[in-house]
Amino acid sequence: MKFKLSSELEYTLTQPVTFLLSVRARLSATQRILSEEFTINAPVEHVMVRCAATGTRFDRVHAANAGNITIRYQAEVEVLSERLNAGEVVETGPETFDLDVLPYLYPSRYCQSDRIGRLSYDLVSHLKTQEEQVRAIVEWIGTRVSYVSGSTNANTSATDTLVERAGVCRDYAHLGIALCRSMNIPARYFTGYAHDLNPPDFHACFETWIGGRWLFWDATGLASPDGVVRIGTGRDASDCSVCTSFGPLQLQRQEVHCQVLDLGYRKRTPEELLKETYCLDGAGPASA
Amino acid sequence: MKFKLSSELEYTLTQPVTFLLSVRARLSATQRILSEEFTINAPVEHVMVRCAATGTRFDRVHAANAGNITIRYQAEVEVLSERLNAGEVVETGPETFDLDVLPYLYPSRYCQSDRIGRLSYDLVSHLKTQEEQVRAIVEWIGTRVSYVSGSTNANTSATDTLVERAGVCRDYAHLGIALCRSMNIPARYFTGYAHDLNPPDFHACFETWIGGRWLFWDATGLASPDGVVRIGTGRDASDCSVCTSFGPLQLQRQEVHCQVLDLGYRKRTPEELLKETYCLDGAGPASA
Amino acid sequence: MKFKLSSELEYTLTQPVTFLLSVRARLSATQRILSEEFTINAPVEHVMVRCAATGTRFDRVHAANAGNITIRYQAEVEVLSERLNAGEVVETGPETFDLDVLPYLYPSRYCQSDRIGRLSYDLVSHLKTQEEQVRAIVEWIGTRVSYVSGSTNANTSATDTLVERAGVCRDYAHLGIALCRSMNIPARYFTGYAHDLNPPDFHACFETWIGGRWLFWDATGLASPDGVVRIGTGRDASDCSVCTSFGPLQLQRQEVHCQVLDLGYRKRTPEELLKETYCLDGAGPASA
Amino acid sequence: MKFKLSSELEYTLTQPVTFLLSVRARLSATQRILSEEFTINAPVEHVMVRCAATGTRFDRVHAANAGNITIRYQAEVEVLSERLNAGEVVETGPETFDLDVLPYLYPSRYCQSDRIGRLSYDLVSHLKTQEEQVRAIVEWIGTRVSYVSGSTNANTSATDTLVERAGVCRDYAHLGIALCRSMNIPARYFTGYAHDLNPPDFHACFETWIGGRWLFWDATGLASPDGVVRIGTGRDASDCSVCTSFGPLQLQRQEVHCQVLDLGYRKRTPEELLKETYCLDGAGPASA
Repeated sequence: MKFKLSSELEYTLTQPVTFLLSVRARLSATQRILSEEFTINAPVEHVMVRCAATGTRFDRVHAANAGNITIRYQAEVEVLSERLNAGEVVETGPETFDLDVLPYLYPSRYCQSDRIGRLSYDLVSHLKTQEEQVRAIVEWIGTRVSYVSGSTNANTSATDTLVERAGVCRDYAHLGIALCRSMNIPARYFTGYAHDLNPPDFHACFETWIGGRWLFWDATGLASPDGVVRIGTGRDASDCSVCTSFGPLQLQRQEVHCQVLDLGYRKRTPEELLKETYCLDGAGPASA
Repeated sequence: MKFKLSSELEYTLTQPVTFLLSVRARLSATQRILSEEFTINAPVEHVMVRCAATGTRFDRVHAANAGNITIRYQAEVEVLSERLNAGEVVETGPETFDLDVLPYLYPSRYCQSDRIGRLSYDLVSHLKTQEEQVRAIVEWIGTRVSYVSGSTNANTSATDTLVERAGVCRDYAHLGIALCRSMNIPARYFTGYAHDLNPPDFHACFETWIGGRWLFWDATGLASPDGVVRIGTGRDASDCSVCTSFGPLQLQRQEVHCQVLDLGYRKRTPEELLKETYCLDGAGPASA
Repeated sequence: MKFKLSSELEYTLTQPVTFLLSVRARLSATQRILSEEFTINAPVEHVMVRCAATGTRFDRVHAANAGNITIRYQAEVEVLSERLNAGEVVETGPETFDLDVLPYLYPSRYCQSDRIGRLSYDLVSHLKTQEEQVRAIVEWIGTRVSYVSGSTNANTSATDTLVERAGVCRDYAHLGIALCRSMNIPARYFTGYAHDLNPPDFHACFETWIGGRWLFWDATGLASPDGVVRIGTGRDASDCSVCTSFGPLQLQRQEVHCQVLDLGYRKRTPEELLKETYCLDGAGPASA
Repeated sequence: MKFKLSSELEYTLTQPVTFLLSVRARLSATQRILSEEFTINAPVEHVMVRCAATGTRFDRVHAANAGNITIRYQAEVEVLSERLNAGEVVETGPETFDLDVLPYLYPSRYCQSDRIGRLSYDLVSHLKTQEEQVRAIVEWIGTRVSYVSGSTNANTSATDTLVERAGVCRDYAHLGIALCRSMNIPARYFTGYAHDLNPPDFHACFETWIGGRWLFWDATGLASPDGVVRIGTGRDASDCSVCTSFGPLQLQRQEVHCQVLDLGYRKRTPEELLKETYCLDGAGPASA
């Protein structure tokens, strides 16, 4: 699937500041960058770096002066997502997990998997495969949590969402990750551009490691697996901020666009989506 | 129903200390004290006081010396509990609540009803009466929370139990109270002696204000409504400690006994209990 | 001290709703209502009730129709606050506390005194009197917490403020109450009108029970003890909401005014305020 | 410094289970393994793996049968720790941080650095260097938190410790990490064997990234920097469990020993330790 996407961020600086942006589409074997342009409308020091472990690309900016600064990114990207057939995922036990998968089993800032094992066991332990278990978790979250813009903040974690039952995409992903990890299913956070969002925004989803592959899930049901372009990968939102700043920085404006270029693309209904299993990352232990 | 009950508490004091005990059966119109004996095996200052608002009786002890101290309480009590027939509870709106009922609507230390309104609404708003709603909450807790001795501590609150899904009678009561209050149903904490407990211990349950009566509920299913003797009433466990100490005090030993004297008494099955509605407090606005 | 005060609240109702307002100055032996007027600009059922335990007056409103509704309250009030001389407060032990004082020792929704005993002990146990201890707590909060409008919400509790070190008057009061209770000093929440606030708003402070009197404290330093008029009293903010609604109700507008009428009134500096001890409630066990 | 160390862990298994042990001394340029022996007293599948990112070595065990299992590890290790002179650490800004350092700036499960920035700023922002700031944080924790065995559990996080002011080495390290990260100083968790502990146990400390080096800190003051042998490195305790189990596993017994072999070794007093700065990891961006 081919995509045309862009983002534009405007910040106000009151003093010199270093910050790290995560807006570029990931460059990997399953995601090709056909073209891209990254521009900053100010004379700043700037370097792009790529994380070896996750493949996420960051732009580190050092702005020596106060003032407004606008960052624009636009790209055309081809994503080789793969829809898996029923029975195609053959799960393997934890004795097969590589070391780079293990961190995605541990609790993290927003995903306190250590606290919710009884709930997840109660919800899905009767299901035979991990694929079915994750699907049941996704469906449970989708029907139990209400999508309410502005209902949560940067502090909100999976246990908060479990209590308050409202949130945005980030919160859905955190709860999904926490529930999966508590069933010993490695799960990681996924940020990206999504074709289907209204209003357009950055999106957050999650992936689970089953049968030697990272499978893709969106508990909000807002995006199709073949309608998203990955930016970052991490344990949770703390690894994947659009902007990490070392000093005061005020977001003034944000615009995000993402369009599928393939004519045949069709967003499926939530019911259809709940039956599909997608992999956006190829097979193999390496996540990058 | 007539009961024979007793408790024995042994504490170690390392310095002079004042403490407040809540072990006596409540004295009220619906609970008659046939006989009782309260003894302390040490020459201490001691006074019994009765809370006008709740009817709970406290024994305030001031021990001037270090050492061990044993408090024994035994009583015969008659409880005039009332089983209500189907349709007998006719609920009324919040515009009828007296001021002394209102505090039982507010969130408290262990019952953060302000945070869980979406969950309770999701669970029971489709039910027509508050009686049915509370019964559904009781049933939901009973099937979702595991009774695990030692799994919680004095910090544990309703939101913790919602996340961790395990607890003891105190935690079941707190979660029940929080869910009811979030539906605008006044709910209060109930501590007492219970016939059916194994091993014997103090018990905690809760009551809800519906139709001008306090109805009794035990989300653990361990006690029958006609098998309990009330000690204290409060917003949550913070109001109803067996012992509140103003200084160091170490519990060494605790023994609790409670026996129904009526020959005809039969503990019902959990299924039967889930269909019953009981009032242990007579009708009328005054809770004492 | 004489005051002229007023408040005006405008709500939008989308359906019939019952709500409870707490905006009237308390009527008590130490606070005389010289005149007052309470009006609602709509034909609604309305009744004023007074809580026997705390003296707080509530207005219960039942609005049968959707629409906008404006509540206006204005009053002239005389407050007989008493400034205590050095050494005038002679503290007494917990063995002298009446039952109606005890609830103010227990942890509550926003004041988890059960968790912060080590901190308070570390901060003030070296001070000889409870009056000095509370004053040190007030000073500690004043220098450790930043007053930041909008930094907290209705969920925020004393432990949150201890971690995040920012809040508004409500949060300052909750932290003060929690620290005092953890030192076995009864403490309660105080809401009122204050002469000195800029911008004008309802204010929150707290009181501690020492030597048979409720002493007044404002950890924010924004109000003078002789510049406030009490509305409500409670364990914490959960007891003292300006408005408790049983159904959806949207605040559209709020205006609050409070002016000292006495010519001689002078707001003291924070340094002066930190040396003063005031009682706004007369001596004696009864809080009403 | 040369060390002789050992650990012995006995677990009870009730069913087949896979688990991951982290007990081996790290193998790195600054830590040489002179000899080591790792034995399991049962015929199980077992493989040792080394994390490329952190250098931590794990032993993955798959036990096919129920029963008791004992794991013994003993080693002689040489650690090339380096004491830095005053002024030797020349700090550099966040614009110099490599990508593999950044995760140690983000909040993690037990280190909610995102919530405590006001506190750390209040405590140390007046100090000129990051080295002084971290030292002040270490000293602050050492005087504000009480070391109380059994006071915390696997749920306890830095914000809990800030509230409750008691904990064990793990909690001290978490609070230190959280405070440092909130000042934009990368900080990571360190587990190891320590010469000085009484009773002997595994130990937890932390490191901060300043001037291109990981500096070592122990807020408990229990260990000397030249008296510890590193096992694991991670964001917090969630990355560094002695044992991560995929299934039920009950610890029956644990014995840990660690002895410095160098004759000249002397544990310094807490006052001396507070003046020292040590690096246990050599200079350079790579942590492994």
